[in-house]
Amino acid sequence: MNLKEMGLAAKKAAMILARAETAQKNQTLRTLAALLLERKSEILAANASDFNEAKSGGMSHAMLDRLSLEGRLEGLAEDVLRIAGMQDPVGQVFEEKTLPNGLEVSKVRTPIGVLGVVYEARPNVTIDIAALAIKTGNAAVLRGGSETLRTNKALVGLIKEALEENKLPPSALQFIENTDRALVREMLALHQYIDVIIPRGGSGLHQFCRENSRIPVITGGIGICHLYVDETADLEEALLIIQNAKVQRPTVCNALDTALVHRAAARSFLPMLAKTLHLDGVSFRMDKESEEILREAKALGDDDVLAQSDDWDTEWLSLILGVKVVSSLEEAIAHITLHSTGHSDGILTKTPKHADFFVQAVDSAAVYVNASTRFTDGSQLGLGAEVAISTQKLHARGPMGLPELTSYKWVVRGKGHVRP
Amino acid sequence: MNLKEMGLAAKKAAMILARAETAQKNQTLRTLAALLLERKSEILAANASDFNEAKSGGMSHAMLDRLSLEGRLEGLAEDVLRIAGMQDPVGQVFEEKTLPNGLEVSKVRTPIGVLGVVYEARPNVTIDIAALAIKTGNAAVLRGGSETLRTNKALVGLIKEALEENKLPPSALQFIENTDRALVREMLALHQYIDVIIPRGGSGLHQFCRENSRIPVITGGIGICHLYVDETADLEEALLIIQNAKVQRPTVCNALDTALVHRAAARSFLPMLAKTLHLDGVSFRMDKESEEILREAKALGDDDVLAQSDDWDTEWLSLILGVKVVSSLEEAIAHITLHSTGHSDGILTKTPKHADFFVQAVDSAAVYVNASTRFTDGSQLGLGAEVAISTQKLHARGPMGLPELTSYKWVVRGKGHVRP
Repeated sequence: MNLKEMGLAAKKAAMILARAETAQKNQTLRTLAALLLERKSEILAANASDFNEAKSGGMSHAMLDRLSLEGRLEGLAEDVLRIAGMQDPVGQVFEEKTLPNGLEVSKVRTPIGVLGVVYEARPNVTIDIAALAIKTGNAAVLRGGSETLRTNKALVGLIKEALEENKLPPSALQFIENTDRALVREMLALHQYIDVIIPRGGSGLHQFCRENSRIPVITGGIGICHLYVDETADLEEALLIIQNAKVQRPTVCNALDTALVHRAAARSFLPMLAKTLHLDGVSFRMDKESEEILREAKALGDDDVLAQSDDWDTEWLSLILGVKVVSSLEEAIAHITLHSTGHSDGILTKTPKHADFFVQAVDSAAVYVNASTRFTDGSQLGLGAEVAISTQKLHARGPMGLPELTSYKWVVRGKGHVRP
Repeated sequence: MNLKEMGLAAKKAAMILARAETAQKNQTLRTLAALLLERKSEILAANASDFNEAKSGGMSHAMLDRLSLEGRLEGLAEDVLRIAGMQDPVGQVFEEKTLPNGLEVSKVRTPIGVLGVVYEARPNVTIDIAALAIKTGNAAVLRGGSETLRTNKALVGLIKEALEENKLPPSALQFIENTDRALVREMLALHQYIDVIIPRGGSGLHQFCRENSRIPVITGGIGICHLYVDETADLEEALLIIQNAKVQRPTVCNALDTALVHRAAARSFLPMLAKTLHLDGVSFRMDKESEEILREAKALGDDDVLAQSDDWDTEWLSLILGVKVVSSLEEAIAHITLHSTGHSDGILTKTPKHADFFVQAVDSAAVYVNASTRFTDGSQLGLGAEVAISTQKLHARGPMGLPELTSYKWVVRGKGHVRP
């Protein structure tokens, strides 16, 4: 099948999925979870081939770690079962009203139709997206990375089997096996068949999709995150929050990139921060004033250096932290406005007025008061499942759950109503 | 100013607008409404110049009618006052919850930022969009048609005056005076500054924006609309609904394009329909079976002809109606699925089961039961104002009101919360 045929097949299957009962969709997910465990050895064998080839091809340790499903199938199966147990958003009625003329108007949640998902070397995304799509009555066209082709093919086989066993069309899941980049471009032009593009991967992938797609794209994935230590912050608490935001998992998009510290707190706080974070292996990119304070306090680390101007626009994804002294709440907000990617930014303060001002002024997907930026995550914020984290402003912003994989239609019931 | 400078200026102004109080925004709208009346002669003089030039340039009567503001300024001013009186969606808090760990999470409506609006020869759009943008705290970059440049410049002057008088930045409204088409392309690439593109015009404009934009586009504007007369329809009622949907204003997107009639009702209904609609000047594009029924009943009109295959995919925007006999509800739905643009489609029936099946199966922005498709309109459906009618599935579908010009942010308040 060429890409258009795949798109058309997905579109047709989407119409059937859209009308599937919740029980049938949930049973499909339960079948899939069971298959993941039953066929474990088969999947792990495919995965081992991918892994060994990637390893001998020189893939980095971090990437290899993402590729491997060893010891992870049980968790994946549990995730699928958890999605089966969640509420089905499709068919939910909201904004019901009867107009003065008697027309009954409501909005009803519907599937979006066909999701186009482009991702890289993480085969768990295949199962994850398939489960979310089935639950929300959407078909999907998937394009994974070449490094995990064998694993993905094995997983896709199970998904199709689960669909078929539950009398849903296996064509609801289309997997593009040809990993030629030109096909991604072609996929991004199929607006007759694909309703939304969801990139799952690094900033390069998001940018590529945004620049080349004729289909709406949910962009995100880049987080230059800030925490501002206000003059009235509880410094012990601030220290623990910044440590958590920077150190707990530095390679992800909601990890902290820059700490802004009010001048009135800087002399007490920066040496505390340095002592703790240096022990965690963090090094600083500092402004001049922070450097002087740390030097005076004899708290400079060997790897701490003065920040270059473009450092404030860098997503570190590692144990580097930008540190800057500011003279006011307004200056902190101005820095964030200029350098944030609109992902996750926060204020640490004991002054409610400052918190409120910050929350109103900072226009990011998630704005925090006295908490770590690491909470920007579907499961942490109570969504149960996470589709993606959007940093755009249309459709969905921040962590996306099941309802964000739906659209709606207006249903208007009359008794012979005509427009006057 | 070049386009980038205009985008940057709008972006900066948007930050101020985003924080403006509701009262200040409403007062700005009241000032604008007053100015529209005070400066009536000035605006109408500019409009007369545009009108006369367009007329001597051979512009069609329909287009000239859209261009003229003669006798319309009072209505425009009233529209602006009505928007001032509506609820401000910005700052509304929804989905508030406290998580088991004590984190307080809520979503708060925010402005989108900068709206990019591309439109054609209707100067009222300038006021309309400016009022909606100001109300929702958004800045806007407008690009209108060359035929109305003088009128638009006069109107933009008043909008800036109203902003300035109420201490809001006049730069919140950017108007592109150069009507070179290349600038539209350039505007569609300014994703650093413009958050959404809203085309207001014909299908060509929508397609151009979708194909060339790197910014999310709200597409819509094309309505191939269907009404299906079920075997149990009240035929008198069905006749009035179809007449209303086809005849009341045939040039708009929610006007009816095709009537599908169940075979069991066709012999009674089609001659009724023909007699009434022919008097209204409607001519039919029929399938073979409808033609035979009408011929037998001696109800064929002089201009009724057999439909060509692509007629079912044509938005008529005129007094032409497609007419087709179907053998079942399922066949009607299959026809709609194939030929509808997903705008407005309906069923006329007295069988609730058929209505429910149709409502579930037909995936259009608005699905009707026993009512005219002409109700797909922001003011008709109780939104108070209409930004556009979306036929896409992301962000907003169907008529868009003020809340659809907003995004949201997550606000997360903790007490020193760190992620475990």
